[in-house]
Amino acid sequence: MGIKLGILGLGTVGTGTVELLSDGTGRHPLLSEIEIYRVGVRSLDKPRQVTLPDSVITTDLESIVTDPQVDIVVELMGGLEPARSLILKAIQCGKHVVTANKAVISRFGDEIFTAANQAGVYVMLEAAVGGGIPVVRPLKQSLSVNRINTVTGIVNGTTNYILTRMRSEGGNFDDVLADAQRLGYAEADPTADVDGLDAADKIAILASLAFDGRIKLEDVYCEGIRQVSKTDIAYADKLGFVIKLLAIAHQDNLSAPLSVRVHPTLVPTDHPLASINGVYNAILVEGEPIGQVMFFGPGAGAGATASAVCSDILNLVAELKLSTENANPLLTCRHHDYSQIAPIEELVTRFYARFLTKDQPGVIGKLGTCFGKYGVSLESVVQTGFQGELAEIVVVTHDVREGDFRQALAEIRSLDPIHSIPSLLRVL
Amino acid sequence: MGIKLGILGLGTVGTGTVELLSDGTGRHPLLSEIEIYRVGVRSLDKPRQVTLPDSVITTDLESIVTDPQVDIVVELMGGLEPARSLILKAIQCGKHVVTANKAVISRFGDEIFTAANQAGVYVMLEAAVGGGIPVVRPLKQSLSVNRINTVTGIVNGTTNYILTRMRSEGGNFDDVLADAQRLGYAEADPTADVDGLDAADKIAILASLAFDGRIKLEDVYCEGIRQVSKTDIAYADKLGFVIKLLAIAHQDNLSAPLSVRVHPTLVPTDHPLASINGVYNAILVEGEPIGQVMFFGPGAGAGATASAVCSDILNLVAELKLSTENANPLLTCRHHDYSQIAPIEELVTRFYARFLTKDQPGVIGKLGTCFGKYGVSLESVVQTGFQGELAEIVVVTHDVREGDFRQALAEIRSLDPIHSIPSLLRVL
Repeated sequence: MGIKLGILGLGTVGTGTVELLSDGTGRHPLLSEIEIYRVGVRSLDKPRQVTLPDSVITTDLESIVTDPQVDIVVELMGGLEPARSLILKAIQCGKHVVTANKAVISRFGDEIFTAANQAGVYVMLEAAVGGGIPVVRPLKQSLSVNRINTVTGIVNGTTNYILTRMRSEGGNFDDVLADAQRLGYAEADPTADVDGLDAADKIAILASLAFDGRIKLEDVYCEGIRQVSKTDIAYADKLGFVIKLLAIAHQDNLSAPLSVRVHPTLVPTDHPLASINGVYNAILVEGEPIGQVMFFGPGAGAGATASAVCSDILNLVAELKLSTENANPLLTCRHHDYSQIAPIEELVTRFYARFLTKDQPGVIGKLGTCFGKYGVSLESVVQTGFQGELAEIVVVTHDVREGDFRQALAEIRSLDPIHSIPSLLRVL
Repeated sequence: MGIKLGILGLGTVGTGTVELLSDGTGRHPLLSEIEIYRVGVRSLDKPRQVTLPDSVITTDLESIVTDPQVDIVVELMGGLEPARSLILKAIQCGKHVVTANKAVISRFGDEIFTAANQAGVYVMLEAAVGGGIPVVRPLKQSLSVNRINTVTGIVNGTTNYILTRMRSEGGNFDDVLADAQRLGYAEADPTADVDGLDAADKIAILASLAFDGRIKLEDVYCEGIRQVSKTDIAYADKLGFVIKLLAIAHQDNLSAPLSVRVHPTLVPTDHPLASINGVYNAILVEGEPIGQVMFFGPGAGAGATASAVCSDILNLVAELKLSTENANPLLTCRHHDYSQIAPIEELVTRFYARFLTKDQPGVIGKLGTCFGKYGVSLESVVQTGFQGELAEIVVVTHDVREGDFRQALAEIRSLDPIHSIPSLLRVL
């Protein structure tokens, strides 16, 4: 007579979720009131790690989201369609929804949450960001008493694994990526991870929660890690930094537009995010009056993600036990408007740039003069290396408006002794 | 027309709480429904950072907890009495309670939660552990779907500050403590912090949440940091460890008794807790299937603690908006029985021990033989230093039952070449 779940998808996370729910000893007693009522799969013939009665498994996913018996639909299929349509249909049918689908939420959150608010149901998404790390619920229920000004995350395990190995082994991006693919830490098509798209989905979701406004995914500036070379990692090390793919959402003050972006970043070695290594994720939240809090843990994996999915289910079960017509204001989506996002040119940040130049006197002077013309002042200049005939010059700037910096670079590129600018990275 | 708060205490945390609630822009909109209705203080004449109407402030604390108008009592006085009696009286009068008082909860939680369950009110305590870090709510509402096996915390900022400075400066405990007192990081009477009592209160609370059973505070084994010397910190460094005051709650399996303890510990430098420095706190939770998650942030301070207090108030306001007679099972205390705690002799752990011995051949052999007799095997033996005429020998053992290790030490103490055993620390 418990709460009936309709689970869509029995892949890695679906299997982990069924396993967790099927073995309640030592877990929250409320889990015992949950019944795995229907599980939708693409194919009945595929061998499975978990055994479920034939009456539970079906390939008719639509029949699950429309079944009047189902209380909660748990969407663990991934991908945009049919996940989006099934979520919307479930909402129309008055089901609460739990999803781990960052891609759907970051693209169609507007549509989904508007529908959910109209239907008076909850859409829960703890598993969409940070795998097992409790961060969505703390943002909504705990940290929202603060004026949050910055959310900074290492939210993609694959890129963090690659960057961590490149640093520890001095390896090239291509070699480490190939090995990561071989070991199962990176997909055969690594685009979503290494080009920062997965991290962009996640920071769009985190930003909407932290800054209480919807985010257009196309407004999120996104740069991946393909350009990060072992040379840059070595220079960064010398300068006291590690390179991390950071997803950042920041607001200077309550009336300023947001900056929401994903890019490889030089992080000072004593920064809390600098020591997050391997496939781990971490999300640092800064606000007033709390200061800095950070959430650290496994960003992916069957068990970790199942923990997040099941915590959402647990919270819905608790809510359903209250038998009230009123919606819990801490579980609903409370924003309707889109946040204003500043273009990347308006960003004020420090930069790291690596130049290859002819090996002749006066080059650093020319660089400095040109930077000065656009208001770019330099924090440090390093000239140590050579690449063949060319001298290598690395600069770190003080804070500068990105648009000004880019103008300076355009002019520098045309200077005679400048051969190329192989790397350009932002500094935290 | 909002939710009426009766706040007890207007010290550091009380002031921070009033300041946060009085300035709602950019925070959760639900905070605007809160009215600071009464604030109880010891003296009306004390100069205050916040201005409140005369009609709000009173020295009659009992009148606040019995006032039929008050919905939520926020206890921020600290100390055992009258805090305990006022909390109990508030509960009797049907008020929900928010408290930051770890000392009261760890000693009288049994009485308080039993009364709260009977009266159908909530007692919220996010601020009692980890300052601003959301950890109580994540443990109750998110991580409780896991079988938690270990909670390991750096939960006392003062001792972490002292140990961090001892390491970075090579300073003595007494000197660094004196400086910490001068700078306001340690109290004039530092006993509760440096002897581990504050950390014991907090791990008792965390253990009761994580392992779903009440904890008798006197069962918590507690050792402070007075015995940690700069010599040990230097040896630990050489061996690849940092020394931290850890509060640990662990259960080997679901039928095993808990181990709940506070002691200075050698932590491997690549462990997530090793890089938590200064006054920061962090709580690492390990469970199945989630693996490791860690919560990091400011463990004390007006703003951080006010954030935790106000998040509890926010959650109560949300609950009150639901207008239901049913209690939310994720907010009530769900355990009634005391957990069984194993005596410290049953602990299985690695040890670090430092011996001062006569400088003569064969001492290490004698040590090893005696350890072997009691089943203690050694992971490493270092002999580098001299203290005056005496040789210094440092050993790190493999895992050993603490009772066996102590028996071996008792026999070693009686060996002729052994002068003394100045340090004895556990290793994570």
